[in-house]
Amino acid sequence: MIEIDDELEFRLGEMTRKTHDMNIPVMIIIEGPPASGKSRLSNALYMALDAKYTDFVATRPPRDIDLRYPFMQRFWNHLPKAGDVNIHFRSWYAQYIEYKEAGITDNIDVDIKEISADMENFERTLDQNGYEIIKFYVNTSEEVRQKHLDKLKENPTLKWKAEEFEEHLELFDYEKEMQGFINQKQQIPWTEIDFENKNEAINTMFKTIIDTLEARVEKERTTAVERIVSDFTKYFESELFTFDFDKEKISKKDYKDILPELQLKMRDIQFQLYQHKIPLILVYEGMDAAGKGGNIKRTRQRLDPTGYTINAVSAPSDIELAHHYLWRFATDIPRSGHIGFFDRSWYGRVLVERVEGFASQKEWTQAYDEIKDFEKSLYNSGAVILKFFLSLDKDEQLERFEEREKNIEKQWKITKEDWRNRAKWDEYLEASEDMIKETDTGYAPWHIIPGNNKKYARIEVLKKIIAACEKVLNDERN
Amino acid sequence: MIEIDDELEFRLGEMTRKTHDMNIPVMIIIEGPPASGKSRLSNALYMALDAKYTDFVATRPPRDIDLRYPFMQRFWNHLPKAGDVNIHFRSWYAQYIEYKEAGITDNIDVDIKEISADMENFERTLDQNGYEIIKFYVNTSEEVRQKHLDKLKENPTLKWKAEEFEEHLELFDYEKEMQGFINQKQQIPWTEIDFENKNEAINTMFKTIIDTLEARVEKERTTAVERIVSDFTKYFESELFTFDFDKEKISKKDYKDILPELQLKMRDIQFQLYQHKIPLILVYEGMDAAGKGGNIKRTRQRLDPTGYTINAVSAPSDIELAHHYLWRFATDIPRSGHIGFFDRSWYGRVLVERVEGFASQKEWTQAYDEIKDFEKSLYNSGAVILKFFLSLDKDEQLERFEEREKNIEKQWKITKEDWRNRAKWDEYLEASEDMIKETDTGYAPWHIIPGNNKKYARIEVLKKIIAACEKVLNDERN
Repeated sequence: MIEIDDELEFRLGEMTRKTHDMNIPVMIIIEGPPASGKSRLSNALYMALDAKYTDFVATRPPRDIDLRYPFMQRFWNHLPKAGDVNIHFRSWYAQYIEYKEAGITDNIDVDIKEISADMENFERTLDQNGYEIIKFYVNTSEEVRQKHLDKLKENPTLKWKAEEFEEHLELFDYEKEMQGFINQKQQIPWTEIDFENKNEAINTMFKTIIDTLEARVEKERTTAVERIVSDFTKYFESELFTFDFDKEKISKKDYKDILPELQLKMRDIQFQLYQHKIPLILVYEGMDAAGKGGNIKRTRQRLDPTGYTINAVSAPSDIELAHHYLWRFATDIPRSGHIGFFDRSWYGRVLVERVEGFASQKEWTQAYDEIKDFEKSLYNSGAVILKFFLSLDKDEQLERFEEREKNIEKQWKITKEDWRNRAKWDEYLEASEDMIKETDTGYAPWHIIPGNNKKYARIEVLKKIIAACEKVLNDERN
Repeated sequence: MIEIDDELEFRLGEMTRKTHDMNIPVMIIIEGPPASGKSRLSNALYMALDAKYTDFVATRPPRDIDLRYPFMQRFWNHLPKAGDVNIHFRSWYAQYIEYKEAGITDNIDVDIKEISADMENFERTLDQNGYEIIKFYVNTSEEVRQKHLDKLKENPTLKWKAEEFEEHLELFDYEKEMQGFINQKQQIPWTEIDFENKNEAINTMFKTIIDTLEARVEKERTTAVERIVSDFTKYFESELFTFDFDKEKISKKDYKDILPELQLKMRDIQFQLYQHKIPLILVYEGMDAAGKGGNIKRTRQRLDPTGYTINAVSAPSDIELAHHYLWRFATDIPRSGHIGFFDRSWYGRVLVERVEGFASQKEWTQAYDEIKDFEKSLYNSGAVILKFFLSLDKDEQLERFEEREKNIEKQWKITKEDWRNRAKWDEYLEASEDMIKETDTGYAPWHIIPGNNKKYARIEVLKKIIAACEKVLNDERN
């Protein structure tokens, strides 16, 4: 009889203590058809790891509330932080197959084929940012699975479970779909495990994890730390943010007439989006003192506060720093029919993190695609996404800074950091131009808004939001 | 015409910047019947505060998944951290009234009258731990509310909202219930606001908040910081943890026979609890090296891993430190039908925090009642709670420490901190005895388990869990 190898179990514990100490986040995925033994396999794994940094994440059938969020939301919410281990008992693959075959889309226009690309992109961005993903498929013969089922049925308290399994088998062609994924030769490969002999299966799983983590730890040890290079043009000039600011303005009187009208319109749109279950995502970037906060304030002034959220970025907490850089935003995406304002956003990766050298060149250059993929996944789940860059010229910024320092009611708005950022004006400008050029897409377009005249900028942004939403709502009606 | 007072708005911003800087968490509750104007009132407040540290928390009708958690869970989940402001648009009061009048209990045996005491206890423990709670009741005449309703009905996109309001009025006697709470003269008083004149109402609200926060800030400035006193007996002796360890043991053979039997029984109980939607909460405390982890491991060994969670305490993160000490556990309570293991727990407040002086004497002494109230609220929501204290004698601990240091496979289990704690053996013992005496209740009893013989302790704990659950399941059946 094959026994569970104590030596393997010890080495597994040792390796995960090592990845824990080295701040490597690990995600172990266990997929398999009903009654294949994946429950016992994942339990053996769970028992072998330290509960202090292990999380067992079971993917269960979606609830109504889950369907109001992007497809990947649940997995973003459960992302392990640096050094932690997730055991995913069924994962985005099981969820994908069940959504696809049951046609679950919560009335919003989700293209299930696109979701499959979103999953690959999700794995890629995690992989590129240091997450170690290990995927198991428990591929047990039908005969053995039938034996498991029969045994379950014998137990009166577990009979319902057998029935659930049988229903699952009837509803979904899980195996065929999974074989499709496995044959695709995905970037992160699958390890197939036969559960005919339980202990042998466990040993195989342990060994695979140990080998993968050992290779990873070795790689960390031998890879030279990439030098952070700023990589900016010496004399950077850009036309992108230059406007004829004398023309891009609005009179006080016109502003007073138009603003309330647009705000009421915006309120009306909020309720229409709600009725059509369309989530709206609004991203604001721009120079310091460009008026982002005031701009957002005018847009939300007449909205129903129960229907929108604001994510206003300040310095990340230690928990946020221990996650993928998209995490603190991905977990704050509005649910369907709601509006999410992002006062600064995930673009910090290619702006402040690039300029200040918090991200390496490799990290911020790959981030363009990662961010586009992320926005695409939101779009694929039905979201309308608009991105605004409020542009200010350098003299106007100086005036606003000085005004803030003089005016007692505004002093709190200006800090040393604002002055430090101003000293890097050209770098920020270049990073902003690269960002806009690299990430301006049809599904999540950038709008550069001249910001020297605050009132003009507020009216412009409101108009753009209203126009984009009306277009989507019209399409929805036809 | 009365206008919104700009000066008040500025001072409100200033005061909340001050409480933010001083790390004071603020909760502003806005209750009021449908169409009373509380939506516009809370929006005005939301607009006046800095979005960076303000959260708008709307209490909506419960979803199925909400009903699987304790009544207060949603509010624990949304607790502001130090320096943040929550605007509660409808709160536990609205939720209470709706649960009560609709008879919502998700099949579990919730006594709604007890819940009302839980709410008071919730406010008290927050208040005692530095949370500033400000409660508004928007008390608008029926005539004015009818006007609001009529206006809503005129707008085609908002008509459904008017209908929702009318349905609410029909279903719930909200006003009468709220007047009951207001007349009770609760510890944290209500401010009533009439919305007949919108701007006057807003000014009143702003002024009340400013006055409250000013008083609080003044109090913080003038209150002397309490000296942390250890307050331990010089020569502490206890009988509570003394056992005849020669008798409290089990042979290897008996262990091998009994353990698998109890584990299977436990697995059966897990599924029965699941079917009856009863949550089970298991708390483990005890001396270092008393065998808590191994004990939990034996209990969960045969359980279905999708049906339990483990909260294993390590040092709190900065986010956890910025919340009420119960927060990181309260947000991890198992949902109905699930089991939650707590490997160390909220009792850290009266153990390590007392011994190490992280909590002041006032804080840890008041914590006994706070903890009892918290456990009572879990019990009131249908949970079975068992608490185990694994007791070890001092010599046995030394042996285990030394064994851990010698054995390469166990070295990671022993740290300098363990030795430091051992040096404070008597203090921990006294704190443990006080804890057990103060918090041993009928709804959440302590079991002191002799731990010198690990095998014996494991069998004992399993037996106690099984017996308690079988009793509850039997009552359920009758």
